[in-house]
Amino acid sequence: MTVPYETISTRLDGNVLFATFNAPPINLIGPEVVRDLVGLLDELSQPSSARVVVFDSADPDFFFPHVDLTKVPEYTAEAARAGGPGDASLGMLFRKLSEIPAVTVAKLRGRARGAGSEFLLACDMRFASRENAVLGQPEVGIGTLPGAGAIQHLTRLLGRSRALEAVLTSADFDADLAERYGWINRAVPDAALDAFVAALAARMGEFPREALLAAKAAINAISLPDLAAVRADAALFQQLVRGEAAQQRTAELFERGLQTRGRTELGLGGVLGEMDGRSPRA
Amino acid sequence: MTVPYETISTRLDGNVLFATFNAPPINLIGPEVVRDLVGLLDELSQPSSARVVVFDSADPDFFFPHVDLTKVPEYTAEAARAGGPGDASLGMLFRKLSEIPAVTVAKLRGRARGAGSEFLLACDMRFASRENAVLGQPEVGIGTLPGAGAIQHLTRLLGRSRALEAVLTSADFDADLAERYGWINRAVPDAALDAFVAALAARMGEFPREALLAAKAAINAISLPDLAAVRADAALFQQLVRGEAAQQRTAELFERGLQTRGRTELGLGGVLGEMDGRSPRA
Amino acid sequence: MTVPYETISTRLDGNVLFATFNAPPINLIGPEVVRDLVGLLDELSQPSSARVVVFDSADPDFFFPHVDLTKVPEYTAEAARAGGPGDASLGMLFRKLSEIPAVTVAKLRGRARGAGSEFLLACDMRFASRENAVLGQPEVGIGTLPGAGAIQHLTRLLGRSRALEAVLTSADFDADLAERYGWINRAVPDAALDAFVAALAARMGEFPREALLAAKAAINAISLPDLAAVRADAALFQQLVRGEAAQQRTAELFERGLQTRGRTELGLGGVLGEMDGRSPRA
Repeated sequence: MTVPYETISTRLDGNVLFATFNAPPINLIGPEVVRDLVGLLDELSQPSSARVVVFDSADPDFFFPHVDLTKVPEYTAEAARAGGPGDASLGMLFRKLSEIPAVTVAKLRGRARGAGSEFLLACDMRFASRENAVLGQPEVGIGTLPGAGAIQHLTRLLGRSRALEAVLTSADFDADLAERYGWINRAVPDAALDAFVAALAARMGEFPREALLAAKAAINAISLPDLAAVRADAALFQQLVRGEAAQQRTAELFERGLQTRGRTELGLGGVLGEMDGRSPRA
Repeated sequence: MTVPYETISTRLDGNVLFATFNAPPINLIGPEVVRDLVGLLDELSQPSSARVVVFDSADPDFFFPHVDLTKVPEYTAEAARAGGPGDASLGMLFRKLSEIPAVTVAKLRGRARGAGSEFLLACDMRFASRENAVLGQPEVGIGTLPGAGAIQHLTRLLGRSRALEAVLTSADFDADLAERYGWINRAVPDAALDAFVAALAARMGEFPREALLAAKAAINAISLPDLAAVRADAALFQQLVRGEAAQQRTAELFERGLQTRGRTELGLGGVLGEMDGRSPRA
Repeated sequence: MTVPYETISTRLDGNVLFATFNAPPINLIGPEVVRDLVGLLDELSQPSSARVVVFDSADPDFFFPHVDLTKVPEYTAEAARAGGPGDASLGMLFRKLSEIPAVTVAKLRGRARGAGSEFLLACDMRFASRENAVLGQPEVGIGTLPGAGAIQHLTRLLGRSRALEAVLTSADFDADLAERYGWINRAVPDAALDAFVAALAARMGEFPREALLAAKAAINAISLPDLAAVRADAALFQQLVRGEAAQQRTAELFERGLQTRGRTELGLGGVLGEMDGRSPRA
């Protein structure tokens, strides 16, 4: 590792890179995280880089709660550095994540909602603590729609009806339900999760690189959405998040403690169900 | 609600419309049900209509057993009123159901076979009583194939092999197996089903309409079949159902009590397995 | 049955053909098995053939362990007899298997890895002994990638993330995990498996042939990969299996007992995890 990252600590073990997100106070996806992720993806795209990378979070309660809603233009500008002109979006950055040569494994403890869930969905595989993991796409409850991959990935992984349920209800999913629906590969007992993921990553790390690359590319070719869909979802998110409904609901959520460590972020799925649709600041 | 329906009773609660099918004696999908469904879908396509609609049945044993096989031309003519010229089919009507702006939630108790299952598959999500729900596509056992969406939806939701099993065996699926295969979103204990569905619907009913609409449309765009496939399945159903094999097997089933409340309709999946393929009226 | 096969014993019961693979010592997919399978598929493509065929293995430990790696050119030449010019591959042969008019049901006991798993994936449905079944795609661990259908089928059946896990880890899957992921239709207790599959096959065997044919063709039309993808996977397998990494790892595996009845073939998934990536003959 030649570059130190402010919000990602890394450790190389054989052919496996362990990358831990650490962006206090609650690991929001803001400009710093996006900047560091752009850098790490560049690094992992080099031919000599690790064959496998394992992502986790230093915060046991939050993998990524969601984007920093006060800095949408700023993190979007950082994301633009990973793509071509006009492709400034987390969706395009996460699409790049899905295509890097390294095999990406996510280990989930705590909450991964919104773009946090979409980061996980862009990884090649993801394993979650059975006792301590929450996934959710709260966008519709806030007044917009998932713009960084969840529409595409969840529809393909869960099928139309369960994807509609996950997205339209904006509800929290625990690890068992997420496994039954296919949102994650597997729920693993928390006490076994670290060893399980480490062994799986080490195993792949010893396999021939060209075989890993060829197989990943062949599966990607028939499972990733086309770029037009990625761009369309990102544009629609940007449009709706600036709309009146989303602005009002976001304001109410900030009054309730959004983006701070507390009840609203811990139980966002439940909080969205308490807000009514008529009076945004009731 | 400005229009009273003969076979659908409706009740509006906030932004949620509860619609209960009631077409005695056993809720066959015949001309009256199709006529009323065409009317209700028109109503639900209005900008001021309910955001969410919950469908259930007044008959605890039958959601929809299947179409009225004595009135195929008549209900098809009613279905034609929902589509353009040349598009007279339940498949096209159910396709319209999948695209209406309201979020559609089906609550299943009793039997939903053939076009009854296909109605459910066209809804956005469906939850079934763990103790009292049966799904089946009996068409192949009768001598035709599912013509109103099951080929398309089951293949996408269950994958090739489980869709082939469901369609080629024409077997009855209980709620637990239907959940494992992805035919329904979830099996819910009967005693909890009403409250579960009501809460889920009420929750979505408070979310901003434009977000619900945008997310549903984005998921539909990558999960619904193209219209040519819908039309092809409908045409093949119409052709085979008039063929000799289907006519003979249908006649035998009517002798056994088809379309009346009794053993044949209650256990159709089992009855199809008792008929041999050589002598249609053995 | 007019043709006796050296490696397949057949028995016709009503409209169901039972076909048992028997190619001692361990049922490798070599030239003889491929030759016989080409013949059987030709037979099953006749209009008067059985409506349903059930495949199983005479060896309780091995359904098909994988191809005979010492005879890749020979079995490929046999496979060529099933297809058009330039289409010499197991992938194209298995594609033909998916399209024959007979309904194909696989009953799995023992190990089915590599092209053995791909044979099963090409069948219409597959049921496995809960206590005694193993599925795996060891190709990436050996240094190549699945070339006869697993990339295509697993991605569609399991979704991107679980397909990547299955293919990139080259791990063994037991029946319960294979069922949870959708690799098989169902895991069935061993003591109940024979009766379960026989009843399912007999049931379909009594259904009208034209209905079975039409429904299978309609599901195939939206679930089988296009031929270009089948050819591309086969070509990539052929290229990588001749490469240095695969040659070295295959040599090490032969030193460990590959293609003989013993620890390496019984537990190949585990053995691949013991090999390091630096010194191929350590």
